[in-house]
Amino acid sequence: MSARITAIYRVTDSPANIEARAKAIAVEQSVEMPVSAITKRSVLDDIVGQVEDIRDLGGGTFEIRIGLAVSTTGLEAGQTLNMLFGNSSLHADMVLHDAIFPDEVVRAFAGPHHGVDGLRARIGARRRALTCSALKPQGLSPAELAELAAQFTRGGIDTIKDDHGLADQAYSPFAERVPVVAAAVRAAQGTVPTRYFPSLSGNLDQLRRQIEIVREAELDGVLIAPMIVGVPSFHTLVRENPDIAFMAHPALAGAARLTPAFHLGKLFRLFGADATVFPNHGGRFAYTPEQCRALAGAALAPWDDVKPTVPVPAGGMTADRVPEMLDFYGADVMLLIGGALLAAGPRLTEETRAFVDTVHAHGQG
Amino acid sequence: MSARITAIYRVTDSPANIEARAKAIAVEQSVEMPVSAITKRSVLDDIVGQVEDIRDLGGGTFEIRIGLAVSTTGLEAGQTLNMLFGNSSLHADMVLHDAIFPDEVVRAFAGPHHGVDGLRARIGARRRALTCSALKPQGLSPAELAELAAQFTRGGIDTIKDDHGLADQAYSPFAERVPVVAAAVRAAQGTVPTRYFPSLSGNLDQLRRQIEIVREAELDGVLIAPMIVGVPSFHTLVRENPDIAFMAHPALAGAARLTPAFHLGKLFRLFGADATVFPNHGGRFAYTPEQCRALAGAALAPWDDVKPTVPVPAGGMTADRVPEMLDFYGADVMLLIGGALLAAGPRLTEETRAFVDTVHAHGQG
Repeated sequence: MSARITAIYRVTDSPANIEARAKAIAVEQSVEMPVSAITKRSVLDDIVGQVEDIRDLGGGTFEIRIGLAVSTTGLEAGQTLNMLFGNSSLHADMVLHDAIFPDEVVRAFAGPHHGVDGLRARIGARRRALTCSALKPQGLSPAELAELAAQFTRGGIDTIKDDHGLADQAYSPFAERVPVVAAAVRAAQGTVPTRYFPSLSGNLDQLRRQIEIVREAELDGVLIAPMIVGVPSFHTLVRENPDIAFMAHPALAGAARLTPAFHLGKLFRLFGADATVFPNHGGRFAYTPEQCRALAGAALAPWDDVKPTVPVPAGGMTADRVPEMLDFYGADVMLLIGGALLAAGPRLTEETRAFVDTVHAHGQG
Repeated sequence: MSARITAIYRVTDSPANIEARAKAIAVEQSVEMPVSAITKRSVLDDIVGQVEDIRDLGGGTFEIRIGLAVSTTGLEAGQTLNMLFGNSSLHADMVLHDAIFPDEVVRAFAGPHHGVDGLRARIGARRRALTCSALKPQGLSPAELAELAAQFTRGGIDTIKDDHGLADQAYSPFAERVPVVAAAVRAAQGTVPTRYFPSLSGNLDQLRRQIEIVREAELDGVLIAPMIVGVPSFHTLVRENPDIAFMAHPALAGAARLTPAFHLGKLFRLFGADATVFPNHGGRFAYTPEQCRALAGAALAPWDDVKPTVPVPAGGMTADRVPEMLDFYGADVMLLIGGALLAAGPRLTEETRAFVDTVHAHGQG
């Protein structure tokens, strides 16, 4: 008997149709053909998806649990996502809500190398929340971005990430930007060992070259958007670079088809995110407090030997929300304020310092 | 003045808010920070997104056109998708409906190498529609899949593709499956030079190794799911392998709320799909006839020097729908019937032959 992943879908359908629908999903996400035409016993027993449970959640929504054979995933990240939601993503009336992974899947993908404790240790922040800001706008030169990074650093920020829009563009090529910004951060450092996470992009060759540039610049962390580069590239990079911390960005992750807690919390964690950026409630995006709580929960929950992933709520956050956010998330969080700090213009260092001080003070309160 | 891509979004919002919303999208998809805090003239002029048009479509839906600077894309596939819809994909009330690409973008990505005429020429089918079926279920051994492929071939089918669930699994490793199936197809060939398209998966290293195996087996086409492997890998493979035809599969494409005609038709074509599989109306998926017509239209429309992509309607099709589908799509189409043929069991060759004959006859009618 082969091990199975339990995929948990939420589906809008009629009570009369839901059993047939569940069976159809089990087939769609496994053999994708009429089961009656399958004659091989081992395929019927070990490959065809199995309906494990159907639960009426009320309001026309059902939760359907399907057991998907681990063997169909080949233990490869892209194929795992394909088996979980490839064809079913085309059905507008269903979402991939969650999945329960058996041990061999968890061991194979193995999660982040650093996680909460690793990122804390780098900064020397034992219990307090971490702080983060973003280099932007794109269109600035490497020297101009470096000057902003120096000001963030003088303000005592823990982490500076490239805006996820920064890639390898003519106005700021990756190979030029990264060493210049890294040097500026080092030169401006005070008591906090500020980290700079450049934004990776492109195909696996390009991603690997960028990681080499990161390492040559004596950096130890990067930003990456798994749904843009593809989860196979993301997971490959994580496994190849155990010394590098990976902050995942949610670009292209979509609004509602994979539940954010599962997608940005659990799945990105499984594939190796040390930190995961997501839209906090009350910002520019419509995530609810419940969605954010569930997402942080999925990133941090005890899970065998898988290290916890640092939740990074973002998307239009401001310094005056810091106490509320820390009350909401607790200390296992990295607060990311980008645009609101940059809006301070010449007072960027001071505003950064105020943000940082608030976080540090809250940790001691 | 830098060239711009016109991104066309459809947004649900109130008339009172729509102007501010359009500006917010223009900022989100470019600099992602308060524009008032940007002091550099060239960023304001050449990088910040520009609202080009807002049109009330009625029913609370607005069409918003945003000019996005080509320079922000770095002319890389992933970053282009990031700039088009990265963060905005997180908004449940908007879709990326379409985009108009300026010449330099079209030239840079360059589209498919073969397209409709190329795929036709390989088969020697000058004007008729093409036929296709799928090898499944996964869980069969290479020899068992090869036997099915032989039966399809004896039925005179033009193209046999792996099920998109076939990857590199223990029960049918890619390196074992592909030569065995290829040999079976060659041995069974009659007058039609049947093509076998193996399904690729994994990271770029794995994809390249698989392409080598494909070439060693003297095959000249593959199936690939761009949203699973990532569009950077997809586009890289296309450019590296001008002799190989790429059939794109829509797995995971539903998760990101891009209008199918744009996504599976235009964008996959831009990035190099010679053929594009999509759910036909009236099958297992809820695409409407209008969506299908628009998708086929986007795949085939005259577009500078970009070759047209073959539309491949699929997803629960049956042989009795062939005349209707040919009337609907015309002859520039590849009809894909998978499960319904496999359900014929011992009569697989005969049912394939009947499907093929119907298509051929229609072309001469």
